[in-house]
Amino acid sequence: MIIVMSHQATSAQVQAVVDRVKEIGLRPEVSFGEDRAVIGVIGANAYAYREAFSHLPAIQEIVPITKPYKLASREFQPRDTVVDVGGVAVGGEEVVVMAGPCSVESREMLVETARHVAGQGARILRGGAFKPRTSPYSFQGLGKAGLEMLAQAREETGLRVVSEVLSASDVELVSAYVDMLQVGTRNMQNYTLLQEVGRCGKPVLLKRGMSATVEEWLLAAEYILSQGNRNVVLCERGIRTFETSTRFTLDLNSVPLVRELSHLPVIVDPSQGTGRWSLVRPMSLAAVAAGAHGLLIEVHPRPDEALSDGAQSLDFDGFDRLMHDLRRLVGATTAQPA
Amino acid sequence: MIIVMSHQATSAQVQAVVDRVKEIGLRPEVSFGEDRAVIGVIGANAYAYREAFSHLPAIQEIVPITKPYKLASREFQPRDTVVDVGGVAVGGEEVVVMAGPCSVESREMLVETARHVAGQGARILRGGAFKPRTSPYSFQGLGKAGLEMLAQAREETGLRVVSEVLSASDVELVSAYVDMLQVGTRNMQNYTLLQEVGRCGKPVLLKRGMSATVEEWLLAAEYILSQGNRNVVLCERGIRTFETSTRFTLDLNSVPLVRELSHLPVIVDPSQGTGRWSLVRPMSLAAVAAGAHGLLIEVHPRPDEALSDGAQSLDFDGFDRLMHDLRRLVGATTAQPA
Amino acid sequence: MIIVMSHQATSAQVQAVVDRVKEIGLRPEVSFGEDRAVIGVIGANAYAYREAFSHLPAIQEIVPITKPYKLASREFQPRDTVVDVGGVAVGGEEVVVMAGPCSVESREMLVETARHVAGQGARILRGGAFKPRTSPYSFQGLGKAGLEMLAQAREETGLRVVSEVLSASDVELVSAYVDMLQVGTRNMQNYTLLQEVGRCGKPVLLKRGMSATVEEWLLAAEYILSQGNRNVVLCERGIRTFETSTRFTLDLNSVPLVRELSHLPVIVDPSQGTGRWSLVRPMSLAAVAAGAHGLLIEVHPRPDEALSDGAQSLDFDGFDRLMHDLRRLVGATTAQPA
Amino acid sequence: MIIVMSHQATSAQVQAVVDRVKEIGLRPEVSFGEDRAVIGVIGANAYAYREAFSHLPAIQEIVPITKPYKLASREFQPRDTVVDVGGVAVGGEEVVVMAGPCSVESREMLVETARHVAGQGARILRGGAFKPRTSPYSFQGLGKAGLEMLAQAREETGLRVVSEVLSASDVELVSAYVDMLQVGTRNMQNYTLLQEVGRCGKPVLLKRGMSATVEEWLLAAEYILSQGNRNVVLCERGIRTFETSTRFTLDLNSVPLVRELSHLPVIVDPSQGTGRWSLVRPMSLAAVAAGAHGLLIEVHPRPDEALSDGAQSLDFDGFDRLMHDLRRLVGATTAQPA
Repeated sequence: MIIVMSHQATSAQVQAVVDRVKEIGLRPEVSFGEDRAVIGVIGANAYAYREAFSHLPAIQEIVPITKPYKLASREFQPRDTVVDVGGVAVGGEEVVVMAGPCSVESREMLVETARHVAGQGARILRGGAFKPRTSPYSFQGLGKAGLEMLAQAREETGLRVVSEVLSASDVELVSAYVDMLQVGTRNMQNYTLLQEVGRCGKPVLLKRGMSATVEEWLLAAEYILSQGNRNVVLCERGIRTFETSTRFTLDLNSVPLVRELSHLPVIVDPSQGTGRWSLVRPMSLAAVAAGAHGLLIEVHPRPDEALSDGAQSLDFDGFDRLMHDLRRLVGATTAQPA
Repeated sequence: MIIVMSHQATSAQVQAVVDRVKEIGLRPEVSFGEDRAVIGVIGANAYAYREAFSHLPAIQEIVPITKPYKLASREFQPRDTVVDVGGVAVGGEEVVVMAGPCSVESREMLVETARHVAGQGARILRGGAFKPRTSPYSFQGLGKAGLEMLAQAREETGLRVVSEVLSASDVELVSAYVDMLQVGTRNMQNYTLLQEVGRCGKPVLLKRGMSATVEEWLLAAEYILSQGNRNVVLCERGIRTFETSTRFTLDLNSVPLVRELSHLPVIVDPSQGTGRWSLVRPMSLAAVAAGAHGLLIEVHPRPDEALSDGAQSLDFDGFDRLMHDLRRLVGATTAQPA
Repeated sequence: MIIVMSHQATSAQVQAVVDRVKEIGLRPEVSFGEDRAVIGVIGANAYAYREAFSHLPAIQEIVPITKPYKLASREFQPRDTVVDVGGVAVGGEEVVVMAGPCSVESREMLVETARHVAGQGARILRGGAFKPRTSPYSFQGLGKAGLEMLAQAREETGLRVVSEVLSASDVELVSAYVDMLQVGTRNMQNYTLLQEVGRCGKPVLLKRGMSATVEEWLLAAEYILSQGNRNVVLCERGIRTFETSTRFTLDLNSVPLVRELSHLPVIVDPSQGTGRWSLVRPMSLAAVAAGAHGLLIEVHPRPDEALSDGAQSLDFDGFDRLMHDLRRLVGATTAQPA
Repeated sequence: MIIVMSHQATSAQVQAVVDRVKEIGLRPEVSFGEDRAVIGVIGANAYAYREAFSHLPAIQEIVPITKPYKLASREFQPRDTVVDVGGVAVGGEEVVVMAGPCSVESREMLVETARHVAGQGARILRGGAFKPRTSPYSFQGLGKAGLEMLAQAREETGLRVVSEVLSASDVELVSAYVDMLQVGTRNMQNYTLLQEVGRCGKPVLLKRGMSATVEEWLLAAEYILSQGNRNVVLCERGIRTFETSTRFTLDLNSVPLVRELSHLPVIVDPSQGTGRWSLVRPMSLAAVAAGAHGLLIEVHPRPDEALSDGAQSLDFDGFDRLMHDLRRLVGATTAQPA
C-alpha cells in the first residue's frame, strides 16, 4: 500500500502517518518527491489496514499495490486450470458448447432439444429448473421435477448437465442431479451461496455479475476456491451499460483479460448477453475468436412458445448454422474442434 | 401490449400476428398508420405472452403498456404507506435518522455510539452483524454475538434496531433480535431471501441494487409485498456508473421519482452511496431536500480504527454537525422535525 | 508517478525500469516490499512520460500521484473564485437562478418569460439561439435572430443573458450579444472551442460532458483557464447511466466534490439532468442543499407548445412554486438569499 | 407515435389528447384496452410533435414507432453501401486493415511504419496530425506538418490515408491531404463539424461517441448523409462503462446490430477500445468474426517512445502476429482476404 500525502502536508502530518504505520506493526518507507511526500507501507496484507488512515489529515490518496485475490490469480498458478465436468474437459483445446432451453418446460421438449444439440456436437445440456425472475408474477421454473427431467435427458443422450442453484439450502438437492452447478449473475455476490458451492465438490459455473468488475468477479471465484473447490469455470454474460438496443452489453474484452489475470477457464453466454437471437451467432463466433473456452447457448425447438427468454433463443436451424460456422472457425484457429 | 410491425411487413405477416393473438385468447386491434401497421393486444397480463411473438417475421418492436408491478404502485394505493418500526413511524412527517457503525465490533463501542446518536436525535440504530464482503479475506462480522450486542444497545438507549440479513436461513435468527431486517444491495435480486422476508412479519429495509433500475427495485419490493408483508421501506444507496471519484453515484433523482410511482417510504444512505465521509453531510441535506423520509448514516467513535468502511463513516463531531444542519433544514421545509 | 513491478519481476527487469527513468532525466527511488518492488519516479510532470514504460516487461501498474489539472485546483488557489457576470456575482453567497426557455422561439414569448422570471428573483436569462440537436430533422434554433431577441429581453428586464455557442467560429458573434457563453455537454471535449472561449474575455458556463468524470471536467476547465480566461462557472447537468426512467442521472455528488477539489463556482441544471419537469423542483432544492452556487432552469409560458424539451420545462406556476420553496430553503442554510 | 393514458385517466382527459392531435393536423385512433386507453397518432413525422403532449394530464407514456433516422437505415436502402476510399473498397468482401501510429511524430518514423504495415497487407495508413487531448498540457500533434508527412508516406507506399479533423474550419485543409476524414469520439455530436464534412465530398470515418447509443451514432451519420455525402464508414471504438480494467469497453455487439439496422460499413478500433496492447490481437479477431468490415490498429515501431498512447500500440512483431492470425481467420469465414 502506498499513501500519497497532499502537497500541503506538514512534516508533523507526515510523521503522524508514519507513527500510525508503526503502531499497526507495518514498516514505513518515506520518499520525498518534487512537491509531496509518499509513504510506502510494507508488510503482509497491508492494504487491509487502509481504514486506519482514512481520517488522518493531509492524505490525498491510498493506493493498493497487490491484487486482492490470490488463488484465482495467474501469479499463484501459472498453468491453465482444466475443469473436468463428468468427463468433459473445460479449459483445454476443445471449445465446449453447452446448449439447451432457458427453462426446463416439459420432458418431451427437453429430450427433443437435448437430442438435437447433441447431434450437432454440443457436450453439455443447459436448462433452468429454479429460475430467478425479475417479476414475482413470471414463471419460476419446475423445481425438482425439472431436475429429474434433466437427469433423464442426460441418460438418454450422454450429455453432461448444468443447472442453476439459487440458494445455499438447495445446493445438496441440485448437486444430486447435475454435473455442474451454475451461480447466476444476480447471485455473484451472494456470499452464503458461494461458500456453500465452495464446500461441495461439484464444478461451478460462475456467471459474472451484471455490474461486477473483472476484479470483483475473480474475488467471487476466490470465495469458492478458498473453501477448497478448485473446479470453477467463469462465464461472461454481459454487463449493464447505458446502451439499451441490446439487453446487456456482452463484454468480450473480459475474455482475453481474464486469461491474462487468471488460470481459470472462461466461457461466454451470448444469449443472455445480447438478448436478441439474431446477434447470438456472430457474437458466439467473436467469443471463440477472442479466446473463450466454450459457449452457453439458449436453444428451443419453438422459441415462440418458450415460457421465458424466447426472444434470445435460437431455434434448431439457427443452432445448426451456428455450429457449422463454429466448426469452420475453430478449424482455422489454434483451438481444436471436438 | 403493442406490437409495431416493420414498414415492409406484408398483409400476410400482419395476419399471422393477429392469428397468434387470437390463439392465445387475447384481443387484437389493428391500426394502419402512415407507413406501418400497429397491433394493440388487449387482455389481462398480455405482456406476459410477449415471447409468443418474438420469432414471428416483420415485427419491429413489442412495447408494454402497463407497469409490471402492482402492489408497489401508487396506482394501486394512492396514499403514502407509513411503516411502524417498533413504534417509530417511517414514511410520515418526521425525517427518521438511522445511525450507527458499519459493523458491530464490540459491546463497548456499540453502546458508546448508540448513546451518542440517540442524544442527537437518531431514532434507529444501524449495525452489521453479518457482513457481505467483496473479499473472502475481509472481516465478515460477529454474527449472532453482534445481534446480541444490538439487542443490549436497544435496551440501554431505547433506540430501535436495523441489521442486515444475508440468507433466507438466517431470517428467523435475525428477526429475533431486530426491529427491521435489512436486505442489502448485493441481495436485491436474491429472490429466495425476498420471499422469506416477505413471509415474516418484520419491517424490511430494501436497498436498491447497485445496478438496478427504479423499476427493478420496485419489482423486488413487489416480491416482498406479494408474500403478504406490506412493511417495506426503500433505501437509495448509490448506483454503479463510470464515475470513480465517488465509490458509487448516489442517485437522488430516485427519491422524488419513487414518491411519484409508489406509496412506499424511501430513505437515503449517503455513506455507502458516496464512500467519502466529507460528502455525507451535504448529500444528507440534499436527500432530505429532495423528499427522503429518512437517512441511514454510518457513525463510528474512531473511524480510523473501524474494521470496515472507516473512510465513509462520520465521527461524533461530524455527526453532530450533520444533525445541527438537518434541524435547520427540516425546520425550513414542509416535513416537520422530530 | 509510481511504478509497481510484478511479483515475478527479476532484478534485471527492475534495473531496466530504473535505467529508463534515468535516461529520461527523472530520479528513481526503489523500494522493496514484502513481495514486490515499487519504483518512485520523481521530477516535474513525471506522469507525462508514462508511455515510456508501457512496454517494459514485468510492470504491473503505473500510478500517477499528482492531479493532472493545476489552475483549476484548490491546491493552486485555496479561496473561492467569484465570477462577475455583468454585475451578477456567481460563486458568492447568493444562490443565482438562471431561467428561461430551452430555445428562443419568438420575441414575444421570450420577453414574456424574461419578465416573469425576473419578477420571481431570477438574475440571468437563459435561452438557446444555436441548438445542438441529436437529429438533423429537429428545430436547430433561430441563430443570430435569437441572439438579438435575447439582447432585447436583457434591455427590457435588466436580466443578464447566457446562451450556448456551438463552434469556435461563432464565439465572436455570440459574445457580442451575451454576458456569459455556454459550452454544452456535447462540446465539453471540443478543444478547439474550449481554446477559443479561453482566448475571449467573457465568462464561460462549462457544462459537464454526459460521460465525463469530474477529473475530465476540471481538465476541460483547465483548457479555458490556461488560455488566460479565469471566469469559468461549472454546471452539473446529469451523466449517462443504465437508468432510463430519468433522461440522465443528475449527479449531485459532483457538487460538494468539485467544491473540495476546485475553487471554481458550480451550478446545477435539473431540467436537462432529469428530463422530467415533475423532478425539477425537488432536485433544485437538493442541489442548493448540496452546496450549488446557482441553478439553470428551463421555463416556458406554455410548455406544451415548446419547440424543444417541453417535457422538462416548468410553466410559470411551477417556477413560482420552486422560487417560493427555494427562498425558504436558502433562508435556513448558510448561503444568503438574493 | 402512441400515447398511453394512465389507468385513472377520465374520458375528458382522453378527449383533450384527441383534440390536441387534431389541432396539430394529425389523425388520432383511440383504442380501449382492459384497464386504460391508448391513442395512436398517425401522420408523417408525428413524433416530432411529442412535446405538444408533455404537459397534458393523465398521460403515462409517449412511445415513438418509427426510427428517427432515415437515410442511414436499412429500410431506406436494403443493399450494403461500399465506400470507395481512393480505390480501396470499404464495406465489401475484403476486411480492410487501417494501421499506423496514434500520432504522426516524425517523417522517418511514419514512413518506417507505413512501409511495414503495407508489407503485411494493410491498405490504409492512419496517423493523427491534430490530436484531441484530455489535458491541455499533453502533446497536441504536429498539425499541417503532420498532414504533409502523411501525404509523403502515401506517395512512397501507395497506402491510402485517414486522419482526424477537429473542427469545421480545418475540413478544407485536412481534405487536401487525406483520402478519408476521421471524426473522433469526442466530436460525434459536434454538429457544426458533421455538417461541414457532410458538405465536402470525402469519405468520412465516423467514430462512435464514448457514451452514444447505436441510435445516436446512426443519427450522427444521418447529419452527414443529409448534407449529401453518402460515403460514411462507422467505427466502433469502445464505450464508457463502470469497468476500469480496460480503458473503455469495446462493444462488439454494435457490429452485427449496425449491420442489421443500417447499410453503412462498420469497422472496429480495438486499440482505443481496450487501451491495452495485449488485448488488441484477440479483440481484432473477435471483431472480424462478429462481421466487421475492417480494423483500425495503432502500430508504432517503438511503443515505449510514443508521444501518445504507447500502452495500446502494437509493435511490428505484434502487428505481424495479428495479420498472420487474421489471414487464417478470414480464410475460414465468409469474407475473403485481400
